[in-house]
Amino acid sequence: MNRKMVYFLLGRILLLEGGLLILPLCVSFYYRDNGRSPFLITIAICLFLGLLLCKLFRTENQVFFAREGFLITSLAWLSVSALGALPFLLSGEIPNYVDAFFETVSGFTTTGASILRDVESMSHSMLFWRSFTHWIGGMGVLVLMVAIMPNLPGRTIHVLRAEMPGPTMGKLSPKLRDTAKILYLLYIAMTVLELILLVAGGMPLFDSAIHTFGTAGTGGFSLKADSMGGYSPYLQWVVATFMMLFGVNFNLYFLLAMRRFKTAFRSEELWTYAGIILAATALICWNILPQMGSFSEAIRHAFFQVTTISSTTGFATVDFNQWPTLSRMILVLLMFVGACAGSTAGGLKVSRVVLLFKTARREVRHLLHPQSVNSVRFEGKPVDQTTLISVGTYFALYIGLFAGFWFLVSFQPGFDGVSNFSAVAACYNNIGPGLNLVGPTLGYWHYSPYIKLVLSFAMLFGRLEIYPMLISLSPSTWMKR
Amino acid sequence: MNRKMVYFLLGRILLLEGGLLILPLCVSFYYRDNGRSPFLITIAICLFLGLLLCKLFRTENQVFFAREGFLITSLAWLSVSALGALPFLLSGEIPNYVDAFFETVSGFTTTGASILRDVESMSHSMLFWRSFTHWIGGMGVLVLMVAIMPNLPGRTIHVLRAEMPGPTMGKLSPKLRDTAKILYLLYIAMTVLELILLVAGGMPLFDSAIHTFGTAGTGGFSLKADSMGGYSPYLQWVVATFMMLFGVNFNLYFLLAMRRFKTAFRSEELWTYAGIILAATALICWNILPQMGSFSEAIRHAFFQVTTISSTTGFATVDFNQWPTLSRMILVLLMFVGACAGSTAGGLKVSRVVLLFKTARREVRHLLHPQSVNSVRFEGKPVDQTTLISVGTYFALYIGLFAGFWFLVSFQPGFDGVSNFSAVAACYNNIGPGLNLVGPTLGYWHYSPYIKLVLSFAMLFGRLEIYPMLISLSPSTWMKR
Repeated sequence: MNRKMVYFLLGRILLLEGGLLILPLCVSFYYRDNGRSPFLITIAICLFLGLLLCKLFRTENQVFFAREGFLITSLAWLSVSALGALPFLLSGEIPNYVDAFFETVSGFTTTGASILRDVESMSHSMLFWRSFTHWIGGMGVLVLMVAIMPNLPGRTIHVLRAEMPGPTMGKLSPKLRDTAKILYLLYIAMTVLELILLVAGGMPLFDSAIHTFGTAGTGGFSLKADSMGGYSPYLQWVVATFMMLFGVNFNLYFLLAMRRFKTAFRSEELWTYAGIILAATALICWNILPQMGSFSEAIRHAFFQVTTISSTTGFATVDFNQWPTLSRMILVLLMFVGACAGSTAGGLKVSRVVLLFKTARREVRHLLHPQSVNSVRFEGKPVDQTTLISVGTYFALYIGLFAGFWFLVSFQPGFDGVSNFSAVAACYNNIGPGLNLVGPTLGYWHYSPYIKLVLSFAMLFGRLEIYPMLISLSPSTWMKR
Repeated sequence: MNRKMVYFLLGRILLLEGGLLILPLCVSFYYRDNGRSPFLITIAICLFLGLLLCKLFRTENQVFFAREGFLITSLAWLSVSALGALPFLLSGEIPNYVDAFFETVSGFTTTGASILRDVESMSHSMLFWRSFTHWIGGMGVLVLMVAIMPNLPGRTIHVLRAEMPGPTMGKLSPKLRDTAKILYLLYIAMTVLELILLVAGGMPLFDSAIHTFGTAGTGGFSLKADSMGGYSPYLQWVVATFMMLFGVNFNLYFLLAMRRFKTAFRSEELWTYAGIILAATALICWNILPQMGSFSEAIRHAFFQVTTISSTTGFATVDFNQWPTLSRMILVLLMFVGACAGSTAGGLKVSRVVLLFKTARREVRHLLHPQSVNSVRFEGKPVDQTTLISVGTYFALYIGLFAGFWFLVSFQPGFDGVSNFSAVAACYNNIGPGLNLVGPTLGYWHYSPYIKLVLSFAMLFGRLEIYPMLISLSPSTWMKR
């Protein structure tokens, strides 16, 4: 294990975080709120620690494999969250460090679960930073580093592979830095487009920025107690549509930008994702119609809640806790499926679900016709056995860890099973609001510090797709040979 | 597909069922209750249909593969349930056919979920038949046929393989009929032992027979409204211990009978199963201690409820709905794990969970040290890639179908998500009682006929380990070539 290189890159990440904190600092100066010194102190700490690590661990050893990639990824996400929590603590707006850490992890992992009891009393700069972490975390801290930092050592593909969600990673360009740049350019373009559409619909610029960050990163932090409930139907439709769009594999946008429409629109994952959203919206719309005033209300709320959960964003226009059992249950299933690989969303990812389904179908066919040879094909290509075992194992680990987190959370008395189940489901799948006590009108403030830490780890496991966290918690990673 | 052979064997199964119905008929004569003509009519129907099928489909074609095995298994279980429901209907004790079918499927699949609102008003012969189906279903209808019927065509291994639970099937003897006989002899020996211990503890003979059938088949039908709650601590300990024992792989008892103690006690699955029961009992005992009067009460109720759920039996000594969230949640997790392969229990089976865990560990090791070659070993032998894919696929199908059944059950309004979730979990894993509205003090009577049919299929999918049902529902099985 090339630990020097890992710590050196960690230093780079902290320098990057120091740089990113300048943005909320500017917001603080503009609104003249009390965020100035907290941000300045945090920037100083980031720069100091970053420079120290870069100085101490400069190395000529360029050996860098998958395990180094996994390790730097988990360490980077833990560190940026640990330091990113400082402004909330220093400003006194979140007076408890565990709460501040939970909120920051929830931001970077694009979960959107909140411990705030009164979000509307927060200052502008803190609200901005809170939502800006969504935007950074959505496309990835390490992808951003690769895209913009010069003089990075070779083999950074392992960094990207560990951070990008999905069963396989697509390379958009032969040069890795170019891939990272293209991804961020597409991301920025879509962010700007949504911002314009929201401002054009009459939403104030600051609110628009907050909600755009939350949509782009599929995070879900809002600045209102009722999330998106108070905004006009037009604004709700815009946000819902963009939530759906940010759940699509970014490779497809690249193909569209390259005018390779045919290849883009042949994507099996895209059509499955669209089909799931359509079917779920139709069912829920039919199910909640009696509760809603009109068909247009029902379809809007159904579509919004389906896209918010499918894309694992977590905004809300209504309290879906009041919905019938069927609708609530569909939302819980959607939580686990998630959106497309290579998007900013969490969950299992549609491509994995499709692969599992196809493997099961092949197994049944094989039992019926043992002589026949069936290979599993996905996106027009045959899938090898190793990938199939990996996808199956990932699914087993995914469900196993979910059960483990649920078990750990159940130790706190006073919470019902549904709250605990959906709290873990909502954090682990990076959604945010769950059912019952952690529903969209409530939040996570009533959990104990221990549970908040457990849920913070659940968010990190979910966002980084298990392995980076598992490997950095495995003793053999840390033992000297 | 050799359909003639399938129908011929189905005829044999119905003849066997006609024969088995003589036992409750005798009970009816002994107690002089009104079960005589219902049982006589049902026996006549079974014999008529059985002889008809055997006559019509006698064939010289001995081709018999896995798919024929799967098909005969699912058809056999559906048919014995459909006909086994008749006595309940004809006697008027369950006046509705869907209810009678649900109760009989619940019996044969050793689930123990009941639609009865007043079990104590049932006649002796009906109670006997209801619990006797547990005993038959526990070791398997087809295994019984292979064990006792002469002149069966060759290759019946596919029949056994489709009915015996677990990822792989152990052959105890080179001759298949001998294996089936040995299994039933061990099963009868353990049944008799439990019966003696219960009668010795002061339980009336009839009650002892009912509870022994429920324990041996890991079914769980009782004849009391409070299940095992009213019996003495000694009787509860006996039943709890036997529930645990009937959850052990029967191959191990065979090894013990052969005095191969060392091989038997080296079983990884056995120790994992024992460890799970021990850990869960300790945790729940600690968790419920404040609610219970004393430590001896707490440990007894904890052990009883853990063994009843782990072995997927479903007796109860207390209403565990009143227990804290942590304990309830542990019971839900145990529902999915189940007991050992090759036992009469349901659930995923401990061996599958161990294999999934080991595959995941190998995957992590492989990421850390890509050069190293790790094979997964289980019970001292390396496991091949095909089995690993099968186990992963089975798990994915298992969870996917669970979600599907949950979805279908959610269509009935008026039930909360926990009731629906645990109803499906309890039926699919062949346990019986669930949480909330389907808890041990309530039951399944308040579900609609549609939901009862869905749950009946969930029980059959669970007991037959998915594939037989999936294959008999697949259109390609029925299409002419």
